Amino acid sequence: MLRLLLLLPLLGAAGALPAPLRRHRRAALPVGPYLTRYLSQQIDHFGFDENRTFQQRYLLADQHWKKDNGPILFYTGNEGDIEWFCNNTGFMWDVAEELNAMLVFAEHRYYGESLPFGNESFSDSKHLNYLTSEQALADFAVLVEYLKTTIAGAQHSPVIAIGGSYGGMLAAWFRMKYPHVVVGALAASAPIWQFADLVPCGTFFNIVTNDFKKSGKGCSESIWNSWNAINHLSSTDAGLQWLSNTFHLCSPLKTLQDAAVLKNWLSETWVNLAMVNYPYKADFLQPLPAWPIQAVNLYYNYTGEALCLDVSQTATKSLGEMGWYYQACTEIVMPLCTDGVHDMFEPQKWDFDALSEECYRMWGVRPRLSWILSMYGGKNISSHSNIIFSNGVLDPWSAGGVTQNISNSLVAVVIPDGAHHLDLRSRNPLDPKSVQQARAMEICLMKE
Amino acid sequence: MLRLLLLLPLLGAAGALPAPLRRHRRAALPVGPYLTRYLSQQIDHFGFDENRTFQQRYLLADQHWKKDNGPILFYTGNEGDIEWFCNNTGFMWDVAEELNAMLVFAEHRYYGESLPFGNESFSDSKHLNYLTSEQALADFAVLVEYLKTTIAGAQHSPVIAIGGSYGGMLAAWFRMKYPHVVVGALAASAPIWQFADLVPCGTFFNIVTNDFKKSGKGCSESIWNSWNAINHLSSTDAGLQWLSNTFHLCSPLKTLQDAAVLKNWLSETWVNLAMVNYPYKADFLQPLPAWPIQAVNLYYNYTGEALCLDVSQTATKSLGEMGWYYQACTEIVMPLCTDGVHDMFEPQKWDFDALSEECYRMWGVRPRLSWILSMYGGKNISSHSNIIFSNGVLDPWSAGGVTQNISNSLVAVVIPDGAHHLDLRSRNPLDPKSVQQARAMEICLMKE
Repeated sequence: MLRLLLLLPLLGAAGALPAPLRRHRRAALPVGPYLTRYLSQQIDHFGFDENRTFQQRYLLADQHWKKDNGPILFYTGNEGDIEWFCNNTGFMWDVAEELNAMLVFAEHRYYGESLPFGNESFSDSKHLNYLTSEQALADFAVLVEYLKTTIAGAQHSPVIAIGGSYGGMLAAWFRMKYPHVVVGALAASAPIWQFADLVPCGTFFNIVTNDFKKSGKGCSESIWNSWNAINHLSSTDAGLQWLSNTFHLCSPLKTLQDAAVLKNWLSETWVNLAMVNYPYKADFLQPLPAWPIQAVNLYYNYTGEALCLDVSQTATKSLGEMGWYYQACTEIVMPLCTDGVHDMFEPQKWDFDALSEECYRMWGVRPRLSWILSMYGGKNISSHSNIIFSNGVLDPWSAGGVTQNISNSLVAVVIPDGAHHLDLRSRNPLDPKSVQQARAMEICLMKE
Repeated sequence: MLRLLLLLPLLGAAGALPAPLRRHRRAALPVGPYLTRYLSQQIDHFGFDENRTFQQRYLLADQHWKKDNGPILFYTGNEGDIEWFCNNTGFMWDVAEELNAMLVFAEHRYYGESLPFGNESFSDSKHLNYLTSEQALADFAVLVEYLKTTIAGAQHSPVIAIGGSYGGMLAAWFRMKYPHVVVGALAASAPIWQFADLVPCGTFFNIVTNDFKKSGKGCSESIWNSWNAINHLSSTDAGLQWLSNTFHLCSPLKTLQDAAVLKNWLSETWVNLAMVNYPYKADFLQPLPAWPIQAVNLYYNYTGEALCLDVSQTATKSLGEMGWYYQACTEIVMPLCTDGVHDMFEPQKWDFDALSEECYRMWGVRPRLSWILSMYGGKNISSHSNIIFSNGVLDPWSAGGVTQNISNSLVAVVIPDGAHHLDLRSRNPLDPKSVQQARAMEICLMKE
């Protein structure tokens, strides 16, 4: 189950929405028109031997912007195509008019179209070497300064960084490291403390489990029981065949190894369901007969178009996922573990050495566990200012989030009924009161 | 005269003390005993493809340190052997007892013994690629965290960064970028604004000229007149011979080119004299008969051991100077210029393109003029805290320094009679009142 622990945090944090959901997500609410632009950026901001540049993509919408005073809301793009984040961060579109704000969505290097070496970007560790949060933040800083000096009337516009999930970490870190560039940040569902030993590695899966407990009687127990059932069935050919049929798998299971893949795939699915546990379409997580099989079918085949389910799907590496796997093998190492007692999963210790070996095999690099703490301060961030940390209690990533005020200007917004950065999504009639309040508070703080 | 403008800032800021002075400087005041230690550091903190480490040297003195509460005064080493800074930063030794402080002097990578690739460190732009202020600050952060976790009783010790000249910039930047690591910084004679267009490029040489004006009637005029005199003499062989004899040059001047080298050397000498214009041995700058020739002889032959003067001396590249030349060709680009009207030098415009060409020829790299502003904020640093900027009015580098308070906790200490980071030197009976007051204020602020 190592692979699960390796990939889960990847998919998880990658999982603004995880890969499978992207294919059949609800159409995003319509957003305003925007311009697509590109800026030449140094491939290496921190060294001078590599002096080539690449084109960073960004999206810009200024229809509500008021020159000279109007703020710039700057989305710190995370691991994926920036258009997707632009279309799924309705909150920014909702508040643009009220704040007279310009919207900018900056794509993270190595994602979407912003590939430093084009198709070669992921070819080896040499080409991947410039994929770090530090380089991404430097891109953002250079981009903001470029916008402020080239857009008439923007010179004195205050810039507020906004992001969700890994993008939320980037928003917070952007304010911490470049306070001269952004006056503040809204870091939604940003697990900036899911590193090293800052938080217990098991809390994440406790929250997943609690979400299932809340969603219906017997849910978490069914899942907890399912592992032994699958183990038992996997021991015979007939059992493997039964599992393949029942889950409508595209490739029948042949070996114990295949069954382990199925279990990983199921585990990831539960995590993903917990993360996207949004109030609308909430029937998603209603107790269903024949739990958990129907839930899985529903999740992966919401549109009814899939003829069968592909358990290798979550491991399918689109370019975006490649980048995230690499980041999780270098800087963004988030310890997770299960014990099967406080959670509904098979027990699995956090094993850094195994991770390191796997990363070395995959990429020729080794993760550095403590660097991110040295760089961004771990829990010692009280000397910073003007950051809002929002977290949904239902979101497993809140385990590594800032959920208590640190100071007057490092403020935690906790959304009892919220899932993974619900507050960044468009207003919806079904939004619970708590998320409406959270958004109101965020707007109020941004106005300051 | 391009070479002058290229090398001056290098030697200048390198010039905690410039190279020639190092040979015959007064013996440093005795400092306490210290331990020499080494810490394994990543060669590249900002990328994972280069995973090798090197040994960073640091010096540690804990004889006055009080466990658990006593602070750590952390010298952010600049361009040179750390032992030299340890021996010439008497201020830290003077206050260690009063503050119950541990002293740590951290060597800057690529200087002294802290060579990432040993003798190969300067062989080409690939090996030099990790010589940046960002990497140096990361070394410092990792070192402080290492000390705090491995020295019993140091876990809660507040750490204060201290540095002078480029080391002063590093001290200020260390606090700005790693406020979770250091509670404050004393940045002495740190020209953090001598970049891009933050300050006029001519002020530096105005100050040099004013120092000479103050030092005696006719001083600056003699120097101003000397350029035409040298130009005139250089047009004949007899004139070149006369110059060679008069300046006791080791290699006689043969060409106009040689004469240009002489002029550069003289210009650098005037700058160096202005920088080290300390109150003791102040006769150094007294008006002398036959100005400026005797001054030069006195400066370079203080001990009487030199049989002749070597005008290529300032360009002699010790390993330390190599590193600084590279840094001045990449990140640390400090525009300087002269007009011959407000200063006593031959007019020379600031010419970035020429610099860029020369750097490319020398190192295969090109300087990036604005990066340092994007990284460290230029003049927009008001959101930071707990930094003391001290500057001597006599010091030409004060042109790029912070000489006015920015906030309650970004404090400027101006020393009317001070030269280049005089305040960091040992207490001396000849210290002017102003530097005594400056030190008292610095100690007071550090106690807070």
